[in-house]
Amino acid sequence: MNLVLKKQSKSFDGYTKYYEHDSLSTMTKMNFSTFEPKEKEEIVHCIFWLSGLTCTEDNFITKAGAQKFLAGTNTMILCPDTSPRGLNLPGEHESYDFGSGASFYVNATTPGYEKNYQMYDYIVRDLVELVRSEYKVNSFSIMGHSMGGHGALVIGLRESHIFKKISAFSPIVNPMKCPWGQKALRGYLGSDQELWKKYDATELLGDGEIHTQKILIDQGLADEFLENELLTNNFINKAKKLNRPVEVNFREGYDHSYFFISSFIENHIKFHAE
Amino acid sequence: MNLVLKKQSKSFDGYTKYYEHDSLSTMTKMNFSTFEPKEKEEIVHCIFWLSGLTCTEDNFITKAGAQKFLAGTNTMILCPDTSPRGLNLPGEHESYDFGSGASFYVNATTPGYEKNYQMYDYIVRDLVELVRSEYKVNSFSIMGHSMGGHGALVIGLRESHIFKKISAFSPIVNPMKCPWGQKALRGYLGSDQELWKKYDATELLGDGEIHTQKILIDQGLADEFLENELLTNNFINKAKKLNRPVEVNFREGYDHSYFFISSFIENHIKFHAE
Repeated sequence: MNLVLKKQSKSFDGYTKYYEHDSLSTMTKMNFSTFEPKEKEEIVHCIFWLSGLTCTEDNFITKAGAQKFLAGTNTMILCPDTSPRGLNLPGEHESYDFGSGASFYVNATTPGYEKNYQMYDYIVRDLVELVRSEYKVNSFSIMGHSMGGHGALVIGLRESHIFKKISAFSPIVNPMKCPWGQKALRGYLGSDQELWKKYDATELLGDGEIHTQKILIDQGLADEFLENELLTNNFINKAKKLNRPVEVNFREGYDHSYFFISSFIENHIKFHAE
Repeated sequence: MNLVLKKQSKSFDGYTKYYEHDSLSTMTKMNFSTFEPKEKEEIVHCIFWLSGLTCTEDNFITKAGAQKFLAGTNTMILCPDTSPRGLNLPGEHESYDFGSGASFYVNATTPGYEKNYQMYDYIVRDLVELVRSEYKVNSFSIMGHSMGGHGALVIGLRESHIFKKISAFSPIVNPMKCPWGQKALRGYLGSDQELWKKYDATELLGDGEIHTQKILIDQGLADEFLENELLTNNFINKAKKLNRPVEVNFREGYDHSYFFISSFIENHIKFHAE
Protein backbone atom coordinates (compact mmCIF):
# COMPACT_ATOMS: atom_id res chain seq x y z
CA MET A 1 0.00 0.00 0.00
CA ASN A 2 3.00 2.30 0.35
CA LEU A 3 1.35 4.27 3.15
CA VAL A 4 2.98 7.65 3.82
CA LEU A 5 2.15 9.74 6.89
CA LYS A 6 2.21 13.30 5.54
CA LYS A 7 1.46 15.16 8.77
CA GLN A 8 -0.08 14.66 12.16
CA SER A 9 -1.31 16.86 15.00
CA LYS A 10 -2.00 15.76 18.52
CA SER A 11 -5.71 16.22 19.25
CA PHE A 12 -7.64 15.28 22.38
CA ASP A 13 -4.80 13.01 23.53
CA GLY A 14 -4.89 11.17 20.20
CA TYR A 15 -3.65 12.11 16.73
CA THR A 16 -5.27 13.62 13.68
CA LYS A 17 -3.26 12.28 10.76
CA TYR A 18 -3.02 12.81 7.00
CA TYR A 19 -1.87 9.95 4.80
CA GLU A 20 -1.09 9.36 1.14
CA HIS A 21 -0.92 5.95 -0.50
CA ASP A 22 -1.04 4.20 -3.87
CA SER A 23 -4.45 2.84 -4.77
CA LEU A 24 -4.79 -0.26 -6.89
CA SER A 25 -8.40 0.63 -7.67
CA THR A 26 -7.91 4.19 -8.87
CA MET A 27 -4.34 3.66 -10.11
CA THR A 28 -3.44 7.02 -8.56
CA LYS A 29 -2.11 8.22 -5.26
CA MET A 30 -4.97 8.77 -2.83
CA ASN A 31 -5.27 10.87 0.32
CA PHE A 32 -7.15 10.27 3.52
CA SER A 33 -7.20 11.65 7.05
CA THR A 34 -7.80 9.84 10.30
CA PHE A 35 -8.35 10.52 13.94
CA GLU A 36 -6.71 7.82 16.01
CA PRO A 37 -7.65 8.27 19.66
CA LYS A 38 -5.17 5.64 20.84
CA GLU A 39 -2.18 3.67 19.61
CA LYS A 40 -2.76 1.51 16.54
CA GLU A 41 -2.74 -1.72 18.52
CA GLU A 42 -5.56 -0.46 20.76
CA ILE A 43 -7.92 0.44 17.90
CA VAL A 44 -10.73 -2.10 17.49
CA HIS A 45 -13.26 -0.34 15.25
CA CYS A 46 -13.02 1.97 12.26
CA ILE A 47 -15.70 4.38 11.05
CA PHE A 48 -15.41 5.44 7.42
CA TRP A 49 -16.58 9.01 6.77
CA LEU A 50 -17.44 9.89 3.16
CA SER A 51 -17.55 13.60 2.34
CA GLY A 52 -19.71 15.57 -0.05
CA LEU A 53 -19.22 17.45 -3.31
CA THR A 54 -16.09 19.63 -3.56
CA CYS A 55 -14.63 18.24 -0.33
CA THR A 56 -11.28 16.58 0.28
CA GLU A 57 -9.99 14.48 3.17
CA ASP A 58 -9.63 17.73 5.11
CA ASN A 59 -13.18 19.08 5.57
CA PHE A 60 -14.65 16.67 8.05
CA ILE A 61 -11.57 16.21 10.17
CA THR A 62 -11.12 19.98 10.65
CA LYS A 63 -14.75 21.08 10.92
CA ALA A 64 -16.98 18.39 12.40
CA GLY A 65 -15.57 18.31 15.91
CA ALA A 66 -15.64 14.50 15.92
CA GLN A 67 -12.34 14.11 17.76
CA LYS A 68 -13.86 15.16 21.05
CA PHE A 69 -16.37 12.31 20.97
CA LEU A 70 -13.90 9.66 19.79
CA ALA A 71 -11.32 10.67 22.38
CA GLY A 72 -10.67 7.91 24.86
CA THR A 73 -12.49 5.26 22.81
CA ASN A 74 -10.98 2.44 20.77
CA THR A 75 -12.72 3.69 17.61
CA MET A 76 -10.86 5.53 14.85
CA ILE A 77 -12.37 7.46 11.96
CA LEU A 78 -11.00 7.46 8.43
CA CYS A 79 -11.97 10.14 5.89
CA PRO A 80 -10.98 9.52 2.26
CA ASP A 81 -10.74 12.15 -0.42
CA THR A 82 -13.83 12.37 -2.64
CA SER A 83 -12.16 11.42 -5.95
CA PRO A 84 -8.83 10.60 -7.54
CA ARG A 85 -6.57 13.63 -8.03
CA GLY A 86 -3.79 14.62 -10.36
CA LEU A 87 -5.54 13.46 -13.52
CA ASN A 88 -6.80 15.52 -16.41
CA LEU A 89 -9.67 13.49 -17.79
CA PRO A 90 -12.11 15.01 -20.30
CA GLY A 91 -14.41 17.38 -18.38
CA GLU A 92 -12.97 16.32 -15.03
CA HIS A 93 -12.40 19.79 -13.61
CA GLU A 94 -15.18 21.73 -15.30
CA SER A 95 -17.98 21.45 -12.76
CA TYR A 96 -18.32 21.09 -9.00
CA ASP A 97 -20.73 18.17 -9.29
CA PHE A 98 -18.88 15.86 -11.66
CA GLY A 99 -15.30 14.64 -11.89
CA SER A 100 -12.74 15.78 -9.34
CA GLY A 101 -14.27 16.18 -5.89
CA ALA A 102 -17.45 14.49 -7.09
CA SER A 103 -16.89 10.78 -7.66
CA PHE A 104 -20.25 9.72 -6.23
CA TYR A 105 -18.37 6.61 -4.98
CA VAL A 106 -19.18 4.52 -8.05
CA ASN A 107 -17.08 2.25 -10.27
CA ALA A 108 -17.20 4.21 -13.51
CA THR A 109 -17.66 2.41 -16.81
CA THR A 110 -17.64 5.30 -19.27
CA PRO A 111 -14.69 6.07 -21.54
CA GLY A 112 -12.24 8.40 -19.86
CA TYR A 113 -13.41 7.56 -16.34
CA GLU A 114 -13.47 3.78 -16.27
CA LYS A 115 -9.76 3.43 -15.55
CA ASN A 116 -9.44 5.68 -12.47
CA TYR A 117 -12.88 6.52 -11.09
CA GLN A 118 -13.20 3.20 -9.30
CA MET A 119 -14.09 4.80 -5.99
CA TYR A 120 -16.55 2.14 -4.87
CA ASP A 121 -13.78 -0.44 -5.05
CA TYR A 122 -11.32 2.03 -3.55
CA ILE A 123 -13.47 2.27 -0.40
CA VAL A 124 -14.60 -1.33 -0.18
CA ARG A 125 -11.36 -3.04 -1.23
CA ASP A 126 -8.32 -0.80 -0.90
CA LEU A 127 -9.28 1.04 2.27
CA VAL A 128 -10.88 -1.89 4.06
CA GLU A 129 -7.80 -3.99 3.28
CA LEU A 130 -5.49 -1.17 4.35
CA VAL A 131 -7.21 -0.80 7.72
CA ARG A 132 -7.18 -4.56 8.23
CA SER A 133 -3.49 -4.83 7.51
CA GLU A 134 -2.19 -1.59 9.05
CA TYR A 135 -4.40 -1.44 12.16
CA LYS A 136 -5.35 -5.11 12.55
CA VAL A 137 -8.94 -3.88 12.75
CA ASN A 138 -11.76 -5.97 11.40
CA SER A 139 -14.83 -4.04 12.54
CA PHE A 140 -16.21 -1.32 10.31
CA SER A 141 -19.10 1.07 9.98
CA ILE A 142 -19.78 3.90 7.54
CA MET A 143 -21.23 7.38 7.51
CA GLY A 144 -21.17 10.44 5.29
CA HIS A 145 -22.65 13.75 4.23
CA SER A 146 -24.66 14.65 1.12
CA MET A 147 -22.91 12.87 -1.80
CA GLY A 148 -20.97 11.05 0.92
CA GLY A 149 -24.23 10.19 2.66
CA HIS A 150 -25.29 8.61 -0.63
CA GLY A 151 -21.98 6.75 -0.67
CA ALA A 152 -22.40 5.56 2.91
CA LEU A 153 -25.93 4.30 2.28
CA VAL A 154 -25.08 2.57 -0.97
CA ILE A 155 -21.87 0.96 0.24
CA GLY A 156 -23.34 0.10 3.63
CA LEU A 157 -26.44 -1.50 2.10
CA ARG A 158 -24.45 -3.51 -0.46
CA GLU A 159 -21.60 -4.50 1.86
CA SER A 160 -23.47 -5.26 5.04
CA HIS A 161 -21.04 -8.10 5.75
CA ILE A 162 -18.32 -5.46 6.16
CA PHE A 163 -20.13 -2.45 7.63
CA LYS A 164 -22.07 -3.03 10.85
CA LYS A 165 -23.71 0.38 11.01
CA ILE A 166 -24.77 3.04 8.53
CA SER A 167 -25.56 6.68 9.21
CA ALA A 168 -25.76 9.85 7.16
CA PHE A 169 -26.19 13.59 7.32
CA SER A 170 -28.25 15.16 4.55
CA PRO A 171 -27.75 12.23 2.16
CA ILE A 172 -28.69 12.10 -1.51
CA VAL A 173 -30.99 9.10 -1.06
CA ASN A 174 -32.37 8.65 -4.55
CA PRO A 175 -29.80 9.89 -7.07
CA MET A 176 -31.69 8.40 -10.05
CA LYS A 177 -34.39 10.99 -9.38
CA CYS A 178 -32.38 14.17 -8.77
CA PRO A 179 -30.29 16.42 -11.06
CA TRP A 180 -26.98 15.88 -9.23
CA GLY A 181 -27.40 12.13 -9.31
CA GLN A 182 -28.65 11.88 -12.87
CA LYS A 183 -25.73 13.92 -14.18
CA ALA A 184 -23.22 11.83 -12.25
CA LEU A 185 -24.72 8.43 -12.96
CA ARG A 186 -25.05 9.19 -16.66
CA GLY A 187 -21.51 10.54 -16.75
CA TYR A 188 -19.93 7.62 -14.93
CA LEU A 189 -22.18 4.76 -16.01
CA GLY A 190 -23.78 5.75 -19.30
CA SER A 191 -27.43 6.10 -20.20
CA ASP A 192 -28.78 2.63 -19.24
CA GLN A 193 -30.67 3.41 -16.05
CA GLU A 194 -30.83 -0.25 -15.04
CA LEU A 195 -27.11 0.06 -14.28
CA TRP A 196 -27.74 3.05 -12.02
CA LYS A 197 -29.86 1.09 -9.57
CA LYS A 198 -27.00 -0.46 -7.67
CA TYR A 199 -25.84 3.04 -6.79
CA ASP A 200 -29.21 4.29 -5.58
CA ALA A 201 -29.96 3.77 -1.89
CA THR A 202 -33.72 3.91 -2.31
CA GLU A 203 -33.55 1.24 -5.03
CA LEU A 204 -31.16 -0.88 -2.97
CA LEU A 205 -33.49 -0.98 0.01
CA GLY A 206 -35.62 -3.48 -1.87
CA ASP A 207 -32.80 -5.42 -3.38
CA GLY A 208 -29.95 -7.76 -2.60
CA GLU A 209 -28.43 -8.05 0.84
CA ILE A 210 -30.58 -6.98 3.72
CA HIS A 211 -28.95 -4.64 6.18
CA THR A 212 -30.83 -5.47 9.36
CA GLN A 213 -29.41 -2.75 11.62
CA LYS A 214 -31.24 0.51 12.00
CA ILE A 215 -29.98 3.23 9.63
CA LEU A 216 -29.58 6.66 11.27
CA ILE A 217 -30.13 9.85 9.23
CA ASP A 218 -30.10 13.49 10.28
CA GLN A 219 -31.60 16.01 7.88
CA GLY A 220 -31.91 19.77 8.31
CA LEU A 221 -35.24 21.31 7.38
CA ALA A 222 -33.58 24.56 6.23
CA ASP A 223 -31.35 22.60 3.85
CA GLU A 224 -31.49 24.32 0.47
CA PHE A 225 -30.99 20.99 -1.34
CA LEU A 226 -33.66 19.00 0.48
CA GLU A 227 -36.49 19.42 -1.98
CA ASN A 228 -34.71 18.96 -5.31
CA GLU A 229 -31.60 16.90 -4.62
CA LEU A 230 -31.83 14.97 -1.37
CA LEU A 231 -35.41 13.64 -1.60
CA THR A 232 -35.30 12.18 1.90
CA ASN A 233 -38.94 11.15 1.90
CA ASN A 234 -38.42 8.77 -1.03
CA PHE A 235 -36.13 6.73 1.18
CA ILE A 236 -38.40 6.93 4.20
CA ASN A 237 -41.42 5.80 2.19
CA LYS A 238 -39.56 2.88 0.66
CA ALA A 239 -38.22 1.82 4.07
CA LYS A 240 -41.73 1.96 5.53
CA LYS A 241 -43.13 -0.10 2.69
CA LEU A 242 -40.43 -2.75 3.19
CA ASN A 243 -40.52 -2.47 6.98
CA ARG A 244 -36.83 -1.61 7.23
CA PRO A 245 -35.61 0.13 10.39
CA VAL A 246 -34.66 3.74 9.59
CA GLU A 247 -34.46 6.62 12.07
CA VAL A 248 -34.65 9.98 10.32
CA ASN A 249 -34.31 13.04 12.53
CA PHE A 250 -35.56 16.13 10.76
CA ARG A 251 -33.94 19.15 12.40
CA GLU A 252 -35.82 22.43 12.34
CA GLY A 253 -33.78 25.38 11.09
CA TYR A 254 -30.56 23.50 10.24
CA ASP A 255 -28.95 23.81 6.80
CA HIS A 256 -26.57 21.72 4.67
CA SER A 257 -23.32 22.97 6.26
CA TYR A 258 -20.74 21.56 8.64
CA PHE A 259 -22.37 23.69 11.34
CA PHE A 260 -25.24 21.22 11.11
CA ILE A 261 -22.96 18.20 11.16
CA SER A 262 -20.98 19.43 14.15
CA SER A 263 -24.22 20.03 16.06
CA PHE A 264 -25.26 16.39 15.83
CA ILE A 265 -22.05 14.41 15.27
CA GLU A 266 -21.95 13.34 18.91
CA ASN A 267 -25.08 11.24 18.48
CA HIS A 268 -23.75 9.63 15.30
CA ILE A 269 -20.42 8.76 16.92
CA LYS A 270 -22.29 7.14 19.81
CA PHE A 271 -24.47 5.21 17.35
CA HIS A 272 -21.37 3.82 15.60
CA ALA A 273 -19.33 3.19 18.73
CA GLU A 274 -22.10 1.30 20.53
CA MET B 1 -22.37 50.88 11.80
CA ASN B 2 -24.37 49.63 8.82
CA LEU B 3 -24.29 46.05 10.06
CA VAL B 4 -25.13 43.49 7.35
CA LEU B 5 -25.81 39.83 8.14
CA LYS B 6 -24.20 38.01 5.22
CA LYS B 7 -25.09 34.45 6.20
CA GLN B 8 -26.04 32.35 9.17
CA SER B 9 -26.26 28.68 10.03
CA LYS B 10 -28.09 27.16 12.93
CA SER B 11 -25.56 25.47 15.23
CA PHE B 12 -26.18 23.78 18.59
CA ASP B 13 -29.57 25.46 18.89
CA GLY B 14 -27.98 28.88 18.35
CA TYR B 15 -26.64 30.60 15.24
CA THR B 16 -23.21 30.96 13.68
CA LYS B 17 -23.35 34.25 11.80
CA TYR B 18 -21.18 36.21 9.39
CA TYR B 19 -21.44 39.99 9.32
CA GLU B 20 -20.01 42.87 7.31
CA HIS B 21 -19.98 46.48 8.47
CA ASP B 22 -18.33 49.84 7.87
CA SER B 23 -15.50 50.59 10.26
CA LEU B 24 -14.72 54.14 11.28
CA SER B 25 -11.28 53.09 12.48
CA THR B 26 -10.08 51.27 9.37
CA MET B 27 -12.21 53.27 6.93
CA THR B 28 -13.01 50.03 5.13
CA LYS B 29 -15.69 47.42 5.31
CA MET B 30 -14.81 44.82 7.94
CA ASN B 31 -15.95 41.24 8.46
CA PHE B 32 -16.55 39.27 11.59
CA SER B 33 -18.26 36.05 12.61
CA THR B 34 -20.18 35.26 15.76
CA PHE B 35 -21.74 32.38 17.55
CA GLU B 36 -24.88 33.52 19.32
CA PRO B 37 -26.24 30.72 21.49
CA LYS B 38 -29.48 32.56 22.23
CA GLU B 39 -31.52 35.52 21.04
CA LYS B 40 -29.77 38.89 21.13
CA GLU B 41 -31.73 40.09 24.12
CA GLU B 42 -30.60 37.12 26.19
CA ILE B 43 -26.86 37.61 25.55
CA VAL B 44 -25.08 39.12 28.56
CA HIS B 45 -21.39 38.54 27.84
CA CYS B 46 -19.23 38.72 24.72
CA ILE B 47 -15.87 37.00 24.21
CA PHE B 48 -13.68 38.51 21.50
CA TRP B 49 -11.55 35.96 19.67
CA LEU B 50 -8.54 37.30 17.76
CA SER B 51 -7.07 35.00 15.12
CA GLY B 52 -3.52 34.48 13.96
CA LEU B 53 -1.49 35.17 10.82
CA THR B 54 -3.24 34.46 7.49
CA CYS B 55 -6.60 33.86 9.15
CA THR B 56 -9.94 35.52 8.50
CA GLU B 57 -13.14 35.64 10.51
CA ASP B 58 -13.78 32.09 9.30
CA ASN B 59 -11.01 29.93 10.82
CA PHE B 60 -11.94 29.87 14.47
CA ILE B 61 -15.67 29.65 14.02
CA THR B 62 -15.40 26.64 11.67
CA LYS B 63 -12.50 24.77 13.29
CA ALA B 64 -12.31 25.35 17.05
CA GLY B 65 -15.50 23.59 18.08
CA ALA B 66 -16.37 26.42 20.47
CA GLN B 67 -20.09 26.37 19.70
CA LYS B 68 -20.62 23.21 21.68
CA PHE B 69 -19.34 24.81 24.86
CA LEU B 70 -21.17 28.11 24.41
CA ALA B 71 -24.46 26.36 23.62
CA GLY B 72 -27.09 27.06 26.20
CA THR B 73 -25.11 29.88 27.86
CA ASN B 74 -25.73 33.62 27.65
CA THR B 75 -22.24 34.21 26.26
CA MET B 76 -21.57 34.95 22.59
CA ILE B 77 -18.23 34.93 20.80
CA LEU B 78 -17.19 37.43 18.15
CA CYS B 79 -14.29 36.76 15.76
CA PRO B 80 -13.05 39.70 13.70
CA ASP B 81 -11.01 39.42 10.53
CA THR B 82 -7.26 39.87 11.08
CA SER B 83 -6.82 43.01 8.95
CA PRO B 84 -8.64 45.41 6.66
CA ARG B 85 -9.34 44.01 3.20
CA GLY B 86 -9.86 45.37 -0.27
CA LEU B 87 -6.93 47.76 -0.16
CA ASN B 88 -3.76 47.68 -2.19
CA LEU B 89 -1.23 49.36 0.05
CA PRO B 90 2.49 49.18 -0.75
CA GLY B 91 3.70 45.66 0.16
CA GLU B 92 0.36 44.74 1.72
CA HIS B 93 -0.08 41.42 -0.02
CA GLU B 94 3.53 40.32 -0.46
CA SER B 95 4.10 38.30 2.71
CA TYR B 96 2.05 36.18 5.08
CA ASP B 97 3.38 37.96 8.17
CA PHE B 98 2.79 41.60 7.26
CA GLY B 99 -0.12 43.52 5.76
CA SER B 100 -3.31 41.71 4.85
CA GLY B 101 -4.08 38.92 7.30
CA ALA B 102 -1.33 40.16 9.62
CA SER B 103 -2.33 43.44 11.28
CA PHE B 104 -0.85 42.54 14.67
CA TYR B 105 -3.78 44.55 16.11
CA VAL B 106 -1.85 47.83 16.28
CA ASN B 107 -2.69 51.39 15.28
CA ALA B 108 -0.20 51.89 12.47
CA THR B 109 1.67 55.18 12.14
CA THR B 110 3.81 54.51 9.06
CA PRO B 111 3.06 56.03 5.67
CA GLY B 112 0.75 53.83 3.63
CA TYR B 113 -0.63 52.02 6.68
CA GLU B 114 -1.54 54.83 9.07
CA LYS B 115 -4.89 55.51 7.46
CA ASN B 116 -6.42 52.01 7.48
CA TYR B 117 -4.41 49.71 9.73
CA GLN B 118 -6.01 51.01 12.91
CA MET B 119 -6.89 47.57 14.15
CA TYR B 120 -6.33 48.28 17.84
CA ASP B 121 -8.96 50.99 17.68
CA TYR B 122 -11.13 48.80 15.49
CA ILE B 123 -11.29 46.18 18.23
CA VAL B 124 -11.44 48.48 21.24
CA ARG B 125 -13.71 51.18 19.83
CA ASP B 126 -15.69 50.02 16.81
CA LEU B 127 -16.39 46.46 17.89
CA VAL B 128 -16.94 47.17 21.57
CA GLU B 129 -19.34 49.96 20.63
CA LEU B 130 -21.07 47.75 18.08
CA VAL B 131 -21.67 45.00 20.62
CA ARG B 132 -22.88 47.50 23.18
CA SER B 133 -25.37 49.02 20.77
CA GLU B 134 -26.49 45.97 18.81
CA TYR B 135 -26.61 43.43 21.63
CA LYS B 136 -27.00 45.70 24.67
CA VAL B 137 -24.07 43.80 26.16
CA ASN B 138 -21.60 45.52 28.43
CA SER B 139 -19.46 42.63 29.64
CA PHE B 140 -16.41 41.61 27.63
CA SER B 141 -13.44 39.32 27.69
CA ILE B 142 -10.80 38.53 25.11
CA MET B 143 -8.81 35.61 23.81
CA GLY B 144 -6.82 34.69 20.74
CA HIS B 145 -4.24 32.50 19.04
CA SER B 146 -0.64 33.24 18.07
CA MET B 147 -0.68 36.79 16.59
CA GLY B 148 -4.22 36.96 17.99
CA GLY B 149 -2.96 35.75 21.35
CA HIS B 150 -0.57 38.71 21.25
CA GLY B 151 -3.54 40.93 20.40
CA ALA B 152 -5.62 39.52 23.24
CA LEU B 153 -2.84 39.99 25.80
CA VAL B 154 -1.98 43.51 24.66
CA ILE B 155 -5.55 44.73 24.38
CA GLY B 156 -6.63 42.95 27.53
CA LEU B 157 -3.74 44.35 29.56
CA ARG B 158 -4.23 47.90 28.29
CA GLU B 159 -8.03 47.90 28.41
CA SER B 160 -8.67 46.06 31.65
CA HIS B 161 -11.64 48.35 32.31
CA ILE B 162 -13.33 46.76 29.28
CA PHE B 163 -12.08 43.16 29.27
CA LYS B 164 -12.64 41.16 32.45
CA LYS B 165 -10.69 38.10 31.41
CA ILE B 166 -7.76 37.37 29.11
CA SER B 167 -6.68 34.04 27.70
CA ALA B 168 -4.54 32.87 24.81
CA PHE B 169 -3.41 29.86 22.84
CA SER B 170 0.20 29.88 21.66
CA PRO B 171 0.52 33.69 21.92
CA ILE B 172 3.40 35.82 20.66
CA VAL B 173 4.17 37.24 24.10
CA ASN B 174 7.20 39.39 23.39
CA PRO B 175 7.02 40.64 19.80
CA MET B 176 9.88 43.12 20.29
CA LYS B 177 12.17 40.13 20.65
CA CYS B 178 11.04 37.85 17.81
CA PRO B 179 11.34 38.06 14.01
CA TRP B 180 7.57 38.14 13.32
CA GLY B 181 7.06 40.91 15.85
CA GLN B 182 10.06 42.98 14.87
CA LYS B 183 9.09 42.95 11.21
CA ALA B 184 5.51 43.94 12.00
CA LEU B 185 6.25 46.57 14.62
CA ARG B 186 8.89 48.21 12.43
CA GLY B 187 6.56 48.10 9.44
CA TYR B 188 3.55 49.53 11.24
CA LEU B 189 5.23 51.82 13.79
CA GLY B 190 8.65 52.72 12.41
CA SER B 191 12.07 52.14 13.92
CA ASP B 192 11.69 53.81 17.34
CA GLN B 193 11.45 50.82 19.63
CA GLU B 194 10.09 52.89 22.52
CA LEU B 195 6.86 53.08 20.52
CA TRP B 196 6.73 49.31 20.21
CA LYS B 197 6.44 48.74 23.96
CA LYS B 198 2.74 49.44 24.18
CA TYR B 199 2.16 46.55 21.81
CA ASP B 200 4.34 44.07 23.67
CA ALA B 201 2.60 41.98 26.34
CA THR B 202 5.77 41.24 28.28
CA GLU B 203 6.60 44.96 28.41
CA LEU B 204 3.06 45.87 29.34
CA LEU B 205 3.04 43.55 32.34
CA GLY B 206 5.18 46.06 34.19
CA ASP B 207 3.44 49.12 32.91
CA GLY B 208 0.23 51.07 33.04
CA GLU B 209 -3.04 49.55 34.13
CA ILE B 210 -2.84 46.46 36.23
CA HIS B 211 -5.00 43.58 35.10
CA THR B 212 -5.63 41.77 38.36
CA GLN B 213 -7.40 38.70 37.02
CA LYS B 214 -5.44 35.57 36.29
CA ILE B 215 -4.36 35.29 32.65
CA LEU B 216 -4.81 31.82 31.15
CA ILE B 217 -2.41 30.54 28.47
CA ASP B 218 -2.17 27.16 26.75
CA GLN B 219 1.01 26.40 24.85
CA GLY B 220 1.88 23.23 22.93
CA LEU B 221 5.37 21.86 23.48
CA ALA B 222 5.57 20.51 19.92
CA ASP B 223 4.79 24.00 18.56
CA GLU B 224 7.32 24.74 15.82
CA PHE B 225 7.21 28.47 16.64
CA LEU B 226 7.69 28.21 20.38
CA GLU B 227 11.43 28.73 20.53
CA ASN B 228 11.93 31.55 18.04
CA GLU B 229 8.65 33.42 17.83
CA LEU B 230 6.43 32.83 20.83
CA LEU B 231 9.01 33.09 23.67
CA THR B 232 6.48 32.05 26.30
CA ASN B 233 9.02 31.96 29.10
CA ASN B 234 9.79 35.67 28.74
CA PHE B 235 6.22 36.39 29.76
CA ILE B 236 6.22 33.84 32.56
CA ASN B 237 9.45 35.19 34.03
CA LYS B 238 8.23 38.78 33.93
CA ALA B 239 4.95 37.80 35.54
CA LYS B 240 6.78 35.95 38.30
CA LYS B 241 9.05 38.90 38.95
CA LEU B 242 6.05 41.23 39.24
CA ASN B 243 3.92 38.67 41.05
CA ARG B 244 1.15 38.76 38.45
CA PRO B 245 -1.22 35.80 38.28
CA VAL B 246 -0.62 33.82 35.10
CA GLU B 247 -1.55 30.19 34.48
CA VAL B 248 0.44 28.68 31.63
CA ASN B 249 -0.39 25.11 30.68
CA PHE B 250 2.36 23.57 28.61
CA ARG B 251 0.86 20.68 26.63
CA GLU B 252 3.15 17.82 25.72
CA GLY B 253 3.05 16.87 22.04
CA TYR B 254 0.62 19.58 20.84
CA ASP B 255 1.50 21.84 17.93
CA HIS B 256 0.43 25.29 16.69
CA SER B 257 -2.69 24.17 14.81
CA TYR B 258 -6.43 24.38 15.39
CA PHE B 259 -6.28 20.73 16.43
CA PHE B 260 -4.52 22.02 19.55
CA ILE B 261 -7.04 24.81 20.07
CA SER B 262 -10.04 22.53 19.69
CA SER B 263 -8.55 20.11 22.24
CA PHE B 264 -8.48 22.76 24.98
CA ILE B 265 -11.09 25.35 23.99
CA GLU B 266 -13.59 23.95 26.49
CA ASN B 267 -11.44 25.03 29.40
CA HIS B 268 -10.96 28.53 27.96
CA ILE B 269 -14.67 28.97 27.36
CA LYS B 270 -15.36 27.97 30.95
CA PHE B 271 -12.69 30.40 32.17
CA HIS B 272 -14.35 33.26 30.27
CA ALA B 273 -17.93 32.33 31.08
CA GLU B 274 -17.31 31.99 34.81
